[in-house]
Amino acid sequence: MSRKVTIIGAGSVGSTITYTMAVNGLASEIVMIDVNTERALGEAMDIRQGTPFCSPIQIYAGTYEDAKDSDVVVITSGMPRKAGQSRIDLAQTNVDVIREIAPEIVKHAPDAIYILVSNPVDVLTYTFCKVSGLPENRIIGSGTILDTARLRSRLAEYLSISQKSIHAYVMGEHGDSSFVPWSTARVGSVEILDDKGGFNFTGRIKAKLNPEEIEQYIRTSGGKIIERKGATFYAIAISVCHIVDCLFGSSNRVMTVSSMLHGEYGIDDVCLSIPFIFGPQGICGNVLPAMTEQELEKLQHSADVLKGVIKQVNI
Amino acid sequence: MSRKVTIIGAGSVGSTITYTMAVNGLASEIVMIDVNTERALGEAMDIRQGTPFCSPIQIYAGTYEDAKDSDVVVITSGMPRKAGQSRIDLAQTNVDVIREIAPEIVKHAPDAIYILVSNPVDVLTYTFCKVSGLPENRIIGSGTILDTARLRSRLAEYLSISQKSIHAYVMGEHGDSSFVPWSTARVGSVEILDDKGGFNFTGRIKAKLNPEEIEQYIRTSGGKIIERKGATFYAIAISVCHIVDCLFGSSNRVMTVSSMLHGEYGIDDVCLSIPFIFGPQGICGNVLPAMTEQELEKLQHSADVLKGVIKQVNI
Amino acid sequence: MSRKVTIIGAGSVGSTITYTMAVNGLASEIVMIDVNTERALGEAMDIRQGTPFCSPIQIYAGTYEDAKDSDVVVITSGMPRKAGQSRIDLAQTNVDVIREIAPEIVKHAPDAIYILVSNPVDVLTYTFCKVSGLPENRIIGSGTILDTARLRSRLAEYLSISQKSIHAYVMGEHGDSSFVPWSTARVGSVEILDDKGGFNFTGRIKAKLNPEEIEQYIRTSGGKIIERKGATFYAIAISVCHIVDCLFGSSNRVMTVSSMLHGEYGIDDVCLSIPFIFGPQGICGNVLPAMTEQELEKLQHSADVLKGVIKQVNI
Amino acid sequence: MSRKVTIIGAGSVGSTITYTMAVNGLASEIVMIDVNTERALGEAMDIRQGTPFCSPIQIYAGTYEDAKDSDVVVITSGMPRKAGQSRIDLAQTNVDVIREIAPEIVKHAPDAIYILVSNPVDVLTYTFCKVSGLPENRIIGSGTILDTARLRSRLAEYLSISQKSIHAYVMGEHGDSSFVPWSTARVGSVEILDDKGGFNFTGRIKAKLNPEEIEQYIRTSGGKIIERKGATFYAIAISVCHIVDCLFGSSNRVMTVSSMLHGEYGIDDVCLSIPFIFGPQGICGNVLPAMTEQELEKLQHSADVLKGVIKQVNI
Ligand SMILES: NC(=O)c1ccc[n+]([C@@H]2O[C@H](COP(=O)([O-])OP(=O)(O)OC[C@H]3O[C@@H](n4cnc5c(N)ncnc54)[C@H](O)[C@@H]3O)[C@@H](O)[C@H]2O)c1
Ligand SMILES: NC(=O)c1ccc[n+]([C@@H]2O[C@H](COP(=O)([O-])OP(=O)(O)OC[C@H]3O[C@@H](n4cnc5c(N)ncnc54)[C@H](O)[C@@H]3O)[C@@H](O)[C@H]2O)c1
Ligand SMILES: NC(=O)c1ccc[n+]([C@@H]2O[C@H](COP(=O)([O-])OP(=O)(O)OC[C@H]3O[C@@H](n4cnc5c(N)ncnc54)[C@H](O)[C@@H]3O)[C@@H](O)[C@H]2O)c1
Ligand SMILES: NC(=O)c1ccc[n+]([C@@H]2O[C@H](COP(=O)([O-])OP(=O)(O)OC[C@H]3O[C@@H](n4cnc5c(N)ncnc54)[C@H](O)[C@@H]3O)[C@@H](O)[C@H]2O)c1
Repeated sequence: MSRKVTIIGAGSVGSTITYTMAVNGLASEIVMIDVNTERALGEAMDIRQGTPFCSPIQIYAGTYEDAKDSDVVVITSGMPRKAGQSRIDLAQTNVDVIREIAPEIVKHAPDAIYILVSNPVDVLTYTFCKVSGLPENRIIGSGTILDTARLRSRLAEYLSISQKSIHAYVMGEHGDSSFVPWSTARVGSVEILDDKGGFNFTGRIKAKLNPEEIEQYIRTSGGKIIERKGATFYAIAISVCHIVDCLFGSSNRVMTVSSMLHGEYGIDDVCLSIPFIFGPQGICGNVLPAMTEQELEKLQHSADVLKGVIKQVNI
Repeated sequence: MSRKVTIIGAGSVGSTITYTMAVNGLASEIVMIDVNTERALGEAMDIRQGTPFCSPIQIYAGTYEDAKDSDVVVITSGMPRKAGQSRIDLAQTNVDVIREIAPEIVKHAPDAIYILVSNPVDVLTYTFCKVSGLPENRIIGSGTILDTARLRSRLAEYLSISQKSIHAYVMGEHGDSSFVPWSTARVGSVEILDDKGGFNFTGRIKAKLNPEEIEQYIRTSGGKIIERKGATFYAIAISVCHIVDCLFGSSNRVMTVSSMLHGEYGIDDVCLSIPFIFGPQGICGNVLPAMTEQELEKLQHSADVLKGVIKQVNI
Repeated sequence: MSRKVTIIGAGSVGSTITYTMAVNGLASEIVMIDVNTERALGEAMDIRQGTPFCSPIQIYAGTYEDAKDSDVVVITSGMPRKAGQSRIDLAQTNVDVIREIAPEIVKHAPDAIYILVSNPVDVLTYTFCKVSGLPENRIIGSGTILDTARLRSRLAEYLSISQKSIHAYVMGEHGDSSFVPWSTARVGSVEILDDKGGFNFTGRIKAKLNPEEIEQYIRTSGGKIIERKGATFYAIAISVCHIVDCLFGSSNRVMTVSSMLHGEYGIDDVCLSIPFIFGPQGICGNVLPAMTEQELEKLQHSADVLKGVIKQVNI
Repeated sequence: MSRKVTIIGAGSVGSTITYTMAVNGLASEIVMIDVNTERALGEAMDIRQGTPFCSPIQIYAGTYEDAKDSDVVVITSGMPRKAGQSRIDLAQTNVDVIREIAPEIVKHAPDAIYILVSNPVDVLTYTFCKVSGLPENRIIGSGTILDTARLRSRLAEYLSISQKSIHAYVMGEHGDSSFVPWSTARVGSVEILDDKGGFNFTGRIKAKLNPEEIEQYIRTSGGKIIERKGATFYAIAISVCHIVDCLFGSSNRVMTVSSMLHGEYGIDDVCLSIPFIFGPQGICGNVLPAMTEQELEKLQHSADVLKGVIKQVNI
């Protein structure tokens, strides 16, 4: 009946996730854990003082003991990506953070579903699968859910149409080797790139979509936001809350998140994003669109890049 | 800033729509108009007395004068379909109701967007286009939005997956000649009927989808509910509120609603449902998937059926 | 994590409650149980078909077995009050329904919190306390929560101010002996009846509040709505959903609901409404305002009326 | 129908307000204006990329021209309070910012309701009243709405009861001279400080409330959060969104916000917080509780402090 979430890492991302859950009433209790306890106390206090205008919710800074009975644990601890720094560079430092955190939290919240957000998210999801001892279906990396959101909001601007009517994904690594399988992308039921006049919109600027430009926009937009404001946290927070919403719901959704692959598209023993089915039980399947030869190569390349990193770090 | 809606017809459907808007805070002011003024007063009073637990909203039974400055007008007046009665049989009676209402309401709410719900909805949408003097883009029939919702909720049960991840439509008449263009139906990015193993779901009953059975289910479920409880009003009310939500939003959505056709798929001068784009400005385009020969024939047949009715009634 | 509700009685009230929970996403699973299984099937189907536009939720007609693991059970089965009929007249018939239902449902949902809605609600709440074998704190009668909502929405109209800023209660029986302890009623922090100029509202009609008229309005408005539309179900459904929302929340609320008294204001062994504190654990306290001599007499009178009925029926 | 908000100042507070409106669907269009255009672009981009999971909303960085047709303008530009710095110290700098902004924004959004948030908020609200040329009722300072939220959340913790059931206010300056009129504070209908046993809560720690300690907590908690995390923005953002929600609603609410006084409690020509009534038309009245002699003196003192500042700055 209660919905308890533990957030590890009360930085910009973790705090914004907590705040979002207070605003939209997603959880009934949230524990914030951070090595910087002053920060966790300050963030929890700032959020809690706004709750008279929200649905009832308990929010407090706590310890691993307080994570007891959590339904969901979100891991956002670690170092954010610096301007110019590649996501992969951060790997070892943050793998070590995960290795440190995993036994502590799993001891107190053995039945929770875990969402990994810290970067490099695919590598850390893989790490958590290996070191936590939990079944893989209860471990979800936010993966390219953010990139997919960026793709949809960008296409929505181009097409002057709501993102809800745009069905397109970013797959692979949450990083430079991600890609869009355009052959599967649709607005309503019409292929976005080869619309043969199927899309008729009074007054729309008939600008030809430039797929490369859009992919480039998505890949660089994290970096661009960091340049402009120092960090990215709003879109990722909403995306993570969307995952939590699905876990708390009663049915399964299809979204690109990062999870262990077992032969899908011929790929094995790596975590990356393809359209997975998940819901209250965690990951429970996937929906694999037929892709072009070229798209399959890009996915394979992305898997190779990630395997390369995994080999270089000490898990 | 305010969001004013007028509901004409305070019967089961009109009242449930009003109630839904009170519960989810969609509107800030709702006027209910009905020839049965006692009924309108009673329904408004029952709903209004629950508003202490809702977002602030004003709800009252009124007259056409009270409709002034409405942003949206929803027309649900008329006779509901009786058990066994075909939707088409009701045509003339309800056409006459529309002809009577149209000048009254248009005089007081000339700038509103109009949503037609009464049956036969496609014929009445057509009638309202002809007699209201309003631009066609501000006239929307609920059309097959309800049938599409029924299709998606049925497929969701079969596939054990959320309706949000199912992209499929019912097109044509809201009535016996409606059909599903299965070739365009997808779960995630995978074709529903020809999934070539693309849909992998641990623990799902691998029941083969039977498209005919599902279409039959959709076409008969209105009648089935009427048999069981005497009327249908919940699903249609949510569907209409979804249309209103799109009109009040800031972007355009793709949904199957009924609107005047002008050569789409070679069809002209009839209102029926295809995936239209609509938003704050009303209907502003459409998204026309390529369909199979057979599907195109079904759409043409649906148009012919409706044209047959239109010819027989006095508009 | 999941939020499962069982609704016993799929009539107007039970179905509207189910519908409301679908619309506002309050529950993740709802079972509807009714002796009229066709009705339950029809209502569940009508609501379920609208869920593609709602948060994910499972809704189905079921049996007592399906109530397993329910967090909340709402009892709305029984006969509605007919026009002209006093609430007390219905007592014995509906007491018998409760006696029949109680062992069945308690067997399958022994840990749920129970909300009684059927009339005469105070007598049935008392009955359920006596026959269910459950701890009293997990049994809540909707009591005068509806009357309090009616009071606040009426005062809101008079004062042109939101009901959220009006703090006033109806206490006692949900029936003819209910009353408003006006000495405790406030708008903001100002006494409603003795405002000594504390309430200044540009443009407000300075109509003097007539407390007797307002109490009369509240006591008769159920009957008036029944006259006009045959039944009342919207305001009660919102009120019940508000109770459920509090049970699913993380903190305790003060509302007038019906629960067993143990000496409060000198009253014992009867269920009636005073401001109780309740939350996820059920009833956990009360907040008893100091009342005038006259108000205390009215409360005593209300208790006497209810005890009279309880004596006359066979529990 | 559309709900357009302009946010001036895309810092932590302004961006969190924008983000909150995206999450809860409060507005349909938001323009962010900041002298630091890169920051505004980055914040808007970060928020916008999360909107695929939200209600449709348009968010962009813009100029004063883009503010055209805004329904509400929120002013958060200016310097945040530094740790240790008194709110009053900031006065002149931020008065100058307001004097610079006012003619620009009023030219393009002459019909909007304005919410002042920057500090010292009472002085800036006063400044805006004097320099904008707009009617005072369309100018609202966030005032002690945040302090009231802090008070309620603190009392809620003490009493283990929802903030919604706690009716208490902080009045006067948003600053060191603010105070709580405890004689008017209630939980349900019972006086918080003099509860004569009226508050009975199974299992509650019967800790005696210490009013001085609580007031101290409220007055220092802004500073404490700034020490811990460098700034405060979550609780103020929710509070401001609550004001906007009231403006977009259809009825009037009572809240402590800052507005020009005209003889209330004998105070004149200063902006400070008492329980004002406001709604879609802006400020339209007030609800003035009878206070004790001591409380009235505190209010007078607060007014004197503010008048002192106003005299010292150049408006
Ligand atoms: N997956 C995505 O799409 C995505 C998007 C944005 C950010 N991120 C990642 O999220 C992470 C957090 O970003 P941020 O902006 O909140 O950073 P931040 O620096 O603001 O916060 C990180 C917090 O983690 C805490 N922390 C460090 N080690 C810890 C430990 N062992 N235990 C508990 N807490 C610890 C730090 O004290 C800090 O408060 C980064 O790794 C960032 O790259 C991921
Ligand atoms: N489009 C759909 O998918 C769909 C689904 C369900 C119902 N409907 C249709 O909606 C309509 C309403 O259904 P219902 O169940 O609410 O019926 P109902 O009988 O409960 O209500 C109809 C109301 O219209 C009123 N009315 C009749 N003539 C009027 C007039 N000239 N002016 C104002 N009010 C007038 C009646 O007094 C009555 O209160 C029916 O036509 C029904 O077939 C459509
Ligand atoms: N407390 C309040 O403020 C309030 C307000 C409105 C209605 N009510 C009460 O709620 C109750 C329901 O009202 P309604 O309008 O929904 O009535 P209704 O007649 O529409 O529905 C009652 C349902 O209960 C079912 N039922 C009867 N006996 C049953 C049994 N043994 N097991 C399971 N189901 C059984 C019936 O088949 C019917 O579907 C009435 O008692 C009414 O007085 C209370
Ligand atoms: N009233 C309250 O309860 C409350 C609570 C918290 C913060 N505040 C106040 O809100 C204000 C903003 O705080 P913050 O934390 O967002 O600060 P911040 O420094 O993060 O943001 C302030 C923004 O204003 C911009 N700005 C400065 N001058 C401007 C101008 N002339 N035009 C447009 N933009 C301009 C800056 O570029 C900056 O981006 C501060 O004054 C702070 O004291 C008030």
